[in-house]
Amino acid sequence: MRNVTEETLTDAVLETISKDADPRFREIMSGLIKHLHAFALETNMTKEEWLGAIEFLYQTGKKTTRNRNEFILLSDTLGLSSMVDMISSRGDDDATAVSVLGPFYIENAPFIKNGGDLIADNAGQQTLVKGCVSSTDGTPIPNALLDVWQNAENGKYSNEDPDQDDNNLRARLNAADDGSYSFSTIRPTPYTVPEDGPAGVMLDAMGRHPWRPAHIHFKISADGYQDLITEIYPDDDEYIDADAVFGVRDSLAVSFKQTTSEDTVAQHGLNTPFLTVEYDFRLRPV
Amino acid sequence: MRNVTEETLTDAVLETISKDADPRFREIMSGLIKHLHAFALETNMTKEEWLGAIEFLYQTGKKTTRNRNEFILLSDTLGLSSMVDMISSRGDDDATAVSVLGPFYIENAPFIKNGGDLIADNAGQQTLVKGCVSSTDGTPIPNALLDVWQNAENGKYSNEDPDQDDNNLRARLNAADDGSYSFSTIRPTPYTVPEDGPAGVMLDAMGRHPWRPAHIHFKISADGYQDLITEIYPDDDEYIDADAVFGVRDSLAVSFKQTTSEDTVAQHGLNTPFLTVEYDFRLRPV
Repeated sequence: MRNVTEETLTDAVLETISKDADPRFREIMSGLIKHLHAFALETNMTKEEWLGAIEFLYQTGKKTTRNRNEFILLSDTLGLSSMVDMISSRGDDDATAVSVLGPFYIENAPFIKNGGDLIADNAGQQTLVKGCVSSTDGTPIPNALLDVWQNAENGKYSNEDPDQDDNNLRARLNAADDGSYSFSTIRPTPYTVPEDGPAGVMLDAMGRHPWRPAHIHFKISADGYQDLITEIYPDDDEYIDADAVFGVRDSLAVSFKQTTSEDTVAQHGLNTPFLTVEYDFRLRPV
Repeated sequence: MRNVTEETLTDAVLETISKDADPRFREIMSGLIKHLHAFALETNMTKEEWLGAIEFLYQTGKKTTRNRNEFILLSDTLGLSSMVDMISSRGDDDATAVSVLGPFYIENAPFIKNGGDLIADNAGQQTLVKGCVSSTDGTPIPNALLDVWQNAENGKYSNEDPDQDDNNLRARLNAADDGSYSFSTIRPTPYTVPEDGPAGVMLDAMGRHPWRPAHIHFKISADGYQDLITEIYPDDDEYIDADAVFGVRDSLAVSFKQTTSEDTVAQHGLNTPFLTVEYDFRLRPV
């Protein structure tokens, strides 16, 4: 090993991995080592640049807490999270596309009834979201569990805004026996990913903006099906084609239609005019 | 951008980097994005594995302090640090090979006179280190500054061992007008890199040992020359061909020769038998 050169170092490192190591771990670490080394070689990385990267990771670690993960934000803004989402969505074009989970999910949101309300005292454009949860073959899935969360009119999620109740604009509901679901909410708003840490410095140095188009998050689960984590986006959002975390898919961009039906208004107790979104989810069988 | 696929996502991310960004930063970030994405694609990275990597980085950040940088240890044990060292050493085979700085360097070590002593009350095999500091063309460099540090017989550096004085086995000295230098010390000992953090978990999962061969660290500087950061290793060390951080080079493995010359013993006040190491350093002009 003492005769290693630029040309032989990568193999020398790879050879240290034991033949008895877990085969999948071996595969992943081998890929990581090859790409790390090739990255340094192709860019002719200097020692100063390496030190800069080490300092950047130090700062990223310091900024990260259990409630604010700067490593996830780096993965999101570099497109890695979306790449992993796409890899995990392979092979079934009939299933709803997955999108990023994001850092604002909280487990155990309160239950509301199907058809219930998330608006409470939130300002914003009142919106009815409705559709059906089915299998990839179109069979409705009875009682699928929808976990829904989104931001408020000021662009903030409840867990980053002390002025909101903890569960504001978060709920779980069960679809009906025929897979149908609906709930009323407000139209979500575009917002910036957190810019006050290393990821913000990186975006700024790349000359990139930090905006995400507005979206509603869904985590949908049902016995016998894979969990679906995704987002739906108003297709007329200013940032629909410029998402800072690359989460938008054509099939997830939907119309928030202005609606004036007096019947629907009365049924859901909404003000008029309001918006209607229709979206059907299709889950993959396990 | 909403039509991105596995095949087009990488280019979509690359295109977000502004044409006005610093060209070198653009080059480095482009390389990083390409390799991150290719790594995920080639390994078919799952969402669970991605989450595992995020948790590993979280733990690495939590373990890292200004005195214990786990990110550097990961870079060292994955061979990245040595790759960067080799890249920065290109193009001048007459210069002394560089090696890893490591995490135990402390600035402003106390000065000793050329020919002075680092042994003080340390147990261990007494060793005389001597040689010459010259330019790559062989011209001696008068008064070059040598910054020297190493571990004690128990394998620990002063800054990881409360039982050692802060400056134990650390010193700075100036070479003579003819470039010659010498100092007495003890033979350093092999030791394990810190195993109580994520890097230790990673090494264990790869079935790798954490040992480094014994070495003496040098940081040598002189006006008109590039700083040289390197290590010299006893060539009969048990781990000379199995360094956990890949720092050994053939040209840095040296003989620690048993010596019985009564004259030298008297001159340096050493016990007999002692060891002698002769090593000449060659610095690159700036």
